[in-house]
Amino acid sequence: MQINELFTPCLLLDEQVMQRNIERMQQHVSVDGCTLRPHLKTSKCLEIADAITRGHSRAITVSTLREAEYFGGHGYHDILYSAAPSPNKLPFVIRLLLQGIDLKILADNPASVAAIIQHGARSGLRIPVLLEIDCDGHRSGLPPDIDTVAPLARILKESLGAEFCGIMTHAGSAYDCKSTEAIRAAADAERNTLLRLAGELELAGLPCRIVSIGSTPTAVLGSAFSGISEVRAGAFVFNDLTMVNLGVCNVSDVAISVLCSVIGHRPSANQVVTDAGWMALSADLSTQTQATDYRFGLVCDGLTGARLEDLLAVGTNQEHGLVGPRHGEALDLSQFPVGRLLRIVPVHACATAAAHGSYQVIRGPSVVAEWKRIGGW
Amino acid sequence: MQINELFTPCLLLDEQVMQRNIERMQQHVSVDGCTLRPHLKTSKCLEIADAITRGHSRAITVSTLREAEYFGGHGYHDILYSAAPSPNKLPFVIRLLLQGIDLKILADNPASVAAIIQHGARSGLRIPVLLEIDCDGHRSGLPPDIDTVAPLARILKESLGAEFCGIMTHAGSAYDCKSTEAIRAAADAERNTLLRLAGELELAGLPCRIVSIGSTPTAVLGSAFSGISEVRAGAFVFNDLTMVNLGVCNVSDVAISVLCSVIGHRPSANQVVTDAGWMALSADLSTQTQATDYRFGLVCDGLTGARLEDLLAVGTNQEHGLVGPRHGEALDLSQFPVGRLLRIVPVHACATAAAHGSYQVIRGPSVVAEWKRIGGW
Repeated sequence: MQINELFTPCLLLDEQVMQRNIERMQQHVSVDGCTLRPHLKTSKCLEIADAITRGHSRAITVSTLREAEYFGGHGYHDILYSAAPSPNKLPFVIRLLLQGIDLKILADNPASVAAIIQHGARSGLRIPVLLEIDCDGHRSGLPPDIDTVAPLARILKESLGAEFCGIMTHAGSAYDCKSTEAIRAAADAERNTLLRLAGELELAGLPCRIVSIGSTPTAVLGSAFSGISEVRAGAFVFNDLTMVNLGVCNVSDVAISVLCSVIGHRPSANQVVTDAGWMALSADLSTQTQATDYRFGLVCDGLTGARLEDLLAVGTNQEHGLVGPRHGEALDLSQFPVGRLLRIVPVHACATAAAHGSYQVIRGPSVVAEWKRIGGW
Repeated sequence: MQINELFTPCLLLDEQVMQRNIERMQQHVSVDGCTLRPHLKTSKCLEIADAITRGHSRAITVSTLREAEYFGGHGYHDILYSAAPSPNKLPFVIRLLLQGIDLKILADNPASVAAIIQHGARSGLRIPVLLEIDCDGHRSGLPPDIDTVAPLARILKESLGAEFCGIMTHAGSAYDCKSTEAIRAAADAERNTLLRLAGELELAGLPCRIVSIGSTPTAVLGSAFSGISEVRAGAFVFNDLTMVNLGVCNVSDVAISVLCSVIGHRPSANQVVTDAGWMALSADLSTQTQATDYRFGLVCDGLTGARLEDLLAVGTNQEHGLVGPRHGEALDLSQFPVGRLLRIVPVHACATAAAHGSYQVIRGPSVVAEWKRIGGW
């Protein structure tokens, strides 16, 4: 099948760009003998998981227990669940452990630790736990302070219902950085905070089997992972305009885009109307606070993928998109006849991909496969 | 089942609030003998379609052909597809017509009209078409000018491949209004523009069987629908904080919310961490430009639905939500233990509902049903 035979809107995945992104990340991380534990929250797709892990560890990170169940059922047994589960999720965790999945979960407070131990002990299981550390005040996690972390690690280690596996952190503030130097500093802080804490825990008789860091910006721009057991990253597999703004990649490294059709014109506003609204693009406007605001995405030719200079998806309704020049320059609407195909490069790959049930995998002008995504919790 | 047995995050639908919203709209529209043609883009759910149309016309509006196919397959045969189809969608339109579905589509330019006529004639079908009119410069549609509209209506009427059914418009700019007076003025303009144009078309020998207007704000606050054959509205069935800001409803009229669990705390920022990130809430920040910015939503108690004054979902990551006071007031974190259930009232119901595969239908503390949603195109 060719791209011009696809029904619009749909999600395109350029397989060659994706492979290049994967190889680059694998090489970068493996220099220091570190394992890449890819975060599958971005792709939620078996074929992509296979592509990322091919020839390497099959260790993965997931964002939901539904993902853990899905990938666990397809031979991925070494799984880190990257959001601390509420107590109502622990029966599901136990079910997955009983199915033979080596699922590691997070905790960052005494109440969660107590709930985990209680559920584990009741099931005769030691639930594998990583303590989540807050390296940058971004979101969740314990302060990176041995006096706070060691007592919880010890409770886990000495319990009958849990196993203390190590520590993890996520330098989420790297997404707010204004320069690659700032991201490198965030990567240094992320790595050094965990290495220091792991050393202190070791001295306290609480060795960490796993020391896990990661975010796409700090994984790409960070270095010297020696001593870190694994790096997590998700968005790198597709990249997006947020990453372009951060200096992590170029527009040509973005592997996904939304294929859409011109359905009309709005001459009064110098705009083209398409069938890709926020339902297909997502309502995410992440680049709004970055150096370049790409609104709902950057517009390329639908057939070739060639960038149409400074044309953006400037507005959306549910199933309508408005495409126009970034700075209000004149646009020759005759170049955009009804039916012309366009591609919208996403500002936030995770959000845009989540709007679709599958990927149309392309190589040049050909559609070579359709790969399913999973959703839900 | 009770609410506290649900797995989080999930989408709650308060059936009684929904029923009240439906009855209010039905009564309001039917005063002038007008038909409500509910827009199912918001709910995408068969049980909800049945609730809205019970005892009334089974005429519906859909936003995708996938919806047309789904509802058409469940006995809804009078369907208006509210986005002008690109030519690549016309074979799907014809397939649905051949299945006996009375599907009406939109066009707002000569190229689309030509494509429709060509596809219809080739299939031996007269495709029912409404000309889309732009009453407020919001998005798409022909200028409301008889000299522009009549020639296209005539081409459709005289063609072998299409049927001219009438005109429709959508007062989308009502969403940007800053007062209920402004919305009433938008409703007047929407209605009067179409009534005038329908009259002029009638005089030109181009009678309109259908004169269709609508948007939730103009449907709720508009009046005197006499002469209008149908009013379309979608969001009214759930309502949301955008509608609250517009003065269209109160917070207690919002029928859906996202149930989530507290998973931790962020004492340094005076915030609670939940398991409802943008994946469950959507990344939509529609109230950002309105009178009150509710960020990602308003926070209520999970079990009772009682509003927790001035507590908002202030931030999100993919599967993490941050809940905090609107103005940075002190928050007693001990009131939010790990595992406590919260409800997030959405800023944009269409977007939040689209993040979920089903509705957990509640009556008081009980979960009485699970209703599926459809997605995709």
